[in-house]
Amino acid sequence: MPHRDRVLMGPGPGNPYPEVIEAFSRPVLGHLDPDFIALLDETNERLRAVWRTQNRLTFPVSGTGSAGMEAAFVNVVAPGDVVVVGVNGVFGERMCDVAERCGAQVIRVEAPWGQPLDAQQLLDAHPAPAIIAVVHAETSTGVRNDIAPLAARPVGTLLLVDCVTSLGGIPVEIDDWSVDIAYSGTQKCLGVPPGLAPLTLSERAVESIVERPQSWYLDLNMIARYVTGEGARAYHHTAPITMIYGLHAGLGALLAEGLEASWARHAECGAALHAGLEARGFRLFAADGHRLPELTTVWLPDDLPAGLDDATIRGRLLDRYGIEIGGGLGEFAGRVWRIGLMGHTARPRNVTLLLGALDELLDR
Amino acid sequence: MPHRDRVLMGPGPGNPYPEVIEAFSRPVLGHLDPDFIALLDETNERLRAVWRTQNRLTFPVSGTGSAGMEAAFVNVVAPGDVVVVGVNGVFGERMCDVAERCGAQVIRVEAPWGQPLDAQQLLDAHPAPAIIAVVHAETSTGVRNDIAPLAARPVGTLLLVDCVTSLGGIPVEIDDWSVDIAYSGTQKCLGVPPGLAPLTLSERAVESIVERPQSWYLDLNMIARYVTGEGARAYHHTAPITMIYGLHAGLGALLAEGLEASWARHAECGAALHAGLEARGFRLFAADGHRLPELTTVWLPDDLPAGLDDATIRGRLLDRYGIEIGGGLGEFAGRVWRIGLMGHTARPRNVTLLLGALDELLDR
Repeated sequence: MPHRDRVLMGPGPGNPYPEVIEAFSRPVLGHLDPDFIALLDETNERLRAVWRTQNRLTFPVSGTGSAGMEAAFVNVVAPGDVVVVGVNGVFGERMCDVAERCGAQVIRVEAPWGQPLDAQQLLDAHPAPAIIAVVHAETSTGVRNDIAPLAARPVGTLLLVDCVTSLGGIPVEIDDWSVDIAYSGTQKCLGVPPGLAPLTLSERAVESIVERPQSWYLDLNMIARYVTGEGARAYHHTAPITMIYGLHAGLGALLAEGLEASWARHAECGAALHAGLEARGFRLFAADGHRLPELTTVWLPDDLPAGLDDATIRGRLLDRYGIEIGGGLGEFAGRVWRIGLMGHTARPRNVTLLLGALDELLDR
Repeated sequence: MPHRDRVLMGPGPGNPYPEVIEAFSRPVLGHLDPDFIALLDETNERLRAVWRTQNRLTFPVSGTGSAGMEAAFVNVVAPGDVVVVGVNGVFGERMCDVAERCGAQVIRVEAPWGQPLDAQQLLDAHPAPAIIAVVHAETSTGVRNDIAPLAARPVGTLLLVDCVTSLGGIPVEIDDWSVDIAYSGTQKCLGVPPGLAPLTLSERAVESIVERPQSWYLDLNMIARYVTGEGARAYHHTAPITMIYGLHAGLGALLAEGLEASWARHAECGAALHAGLEARGFRLFAADGHRLPELTTVWLPDDLPAGLDDATIRGRLLDRYGIEIGGGLGEFAGRVWRIGLMGHTARPRNVTLLLGALDELLDR
């Protein structure tokens, strides 16, 4: 099969750190091998550092980011529970769908695509919801929703946050923001290929886990006995060994650089891309002040040269330059691009490359 | 972290084919990249060859084997459906648990651990169940349950088969046996690390998919739009790219050898291990005539040298020889070993090695 390498500047996956690919070649161990258990424990300790949490139940779910979302809801939602969901993009919509399948009574709090959610509206939506759920970094729009103000929620309401595109790229402060449940994906700002979903639960969230979640595969009552160091290591399902090697190595690269340094690198690259696009007359899509550095959304120009449109330009970027960028979703398909600078991809050279390629293709 | 290589002779993972590890180092592509879509299509075509099926909906679920089990049940079980489950080990028990969480009315048909299920009992358990579900190769006991006789079930009853430990190691004939739903895992006889669950559904099963499964992540209505070549490639969740490279390569190695040749290699190695163990006075656990070649269960000897027990012997195998074998489950913990010869591990040299190591450790 043909295989070419790409500069992955879409909405994820980004390019993995070289250390991750090296780790994939390590000899496979059994999921109960003492050496693997030690590596899993160290992976979870690294995740705690990246999540900025002391949460005991912190580990990678054996699936992609959406499995993390499902694990987050399915373990704590009981039928009839009121769940307030912020919706300003595809992933807020997805949260509603997942929560409804768990039997939740969903209250939607909406903002237009490209605009951030209003934290006060989320807090005012219901006097005592079981859960308030928000996407931190909306991958469909490039918007950051602020989480810290939601600490003012009622006692007894769990705060559930989607950090798929934020973790590692912008500040995420699980303990300081009093987040109860959060999940991420490996293929964004953690610089690891897709396949695992880091998940973390506060003790309050752990106490809220239902007795028998409708999902066996994601049942945290059982998984916790394997992934935490407490008691016997009871087998639940076979851990995805090689992917965990990759995550362990990616987190190692990230923490060796330093979490704040990674945030600063993402911020610098995002700012350079935003400035470079605006200097060329592009209009950014996401609201000023809430733009993600790791995922830039931008309107296609109105004055494209003849014969060029969304598909042709993205096709030429891919074929001529080996650059992948993402298209818009929903009503913005064909009208907006989504440009990622995530993990190892978040390098000044990639900003320079993409702007140069656009200059050549659009003859600016 | 310490990392030693192992001869993986437990109940899975086995050692991966070298081609798989090579494939893990390929550059990551996006999940909508035309080159990746071509690789995914070819992976699914290879899976059809290994499953011996023409089923259109054949692809790897983005999770380990137990995610395959959950996907199999959650998409076709409606609340109240009667599901007949064969139970003669841990994985039959797990099927009951998963089916119950989908709202099924489960009818258990049991056989003692180590004995095969009686196909006629399964057929007689209910006049018109929605599903008859059976584990083909019980990883907890080393027993093969026969699937072909279940073709005589009522019209309208789906046949659902767990092939986690059988696919690639012993004959599996999805179309000839009229199996409607089957799943496997990559880390057994396919010779790929854990992380994916090949799944296949007959057209009859596809027509039985419920409108809104309780799992979003495993919802085949949506996943089918991505994984089949029909219509637009609608994004559902980000595919685990690197693991799919590995599966593609592992299936390539398997089909290059030939599926029948792989079955013969597993059969030869299993027979050599069974004979070698019996020649040394060991008693095999699984019923004669239904022993899996890829997973041998054997009683620990009654006359162990002083100071040796299950844990010490398995510990010495691991520390001195780098060999992993598995312990017994449930009431057979400490009394039975489970010895895998799966995928790349199914080599005569590994049989010779293990028998030699046991001779040294047990001073026989």
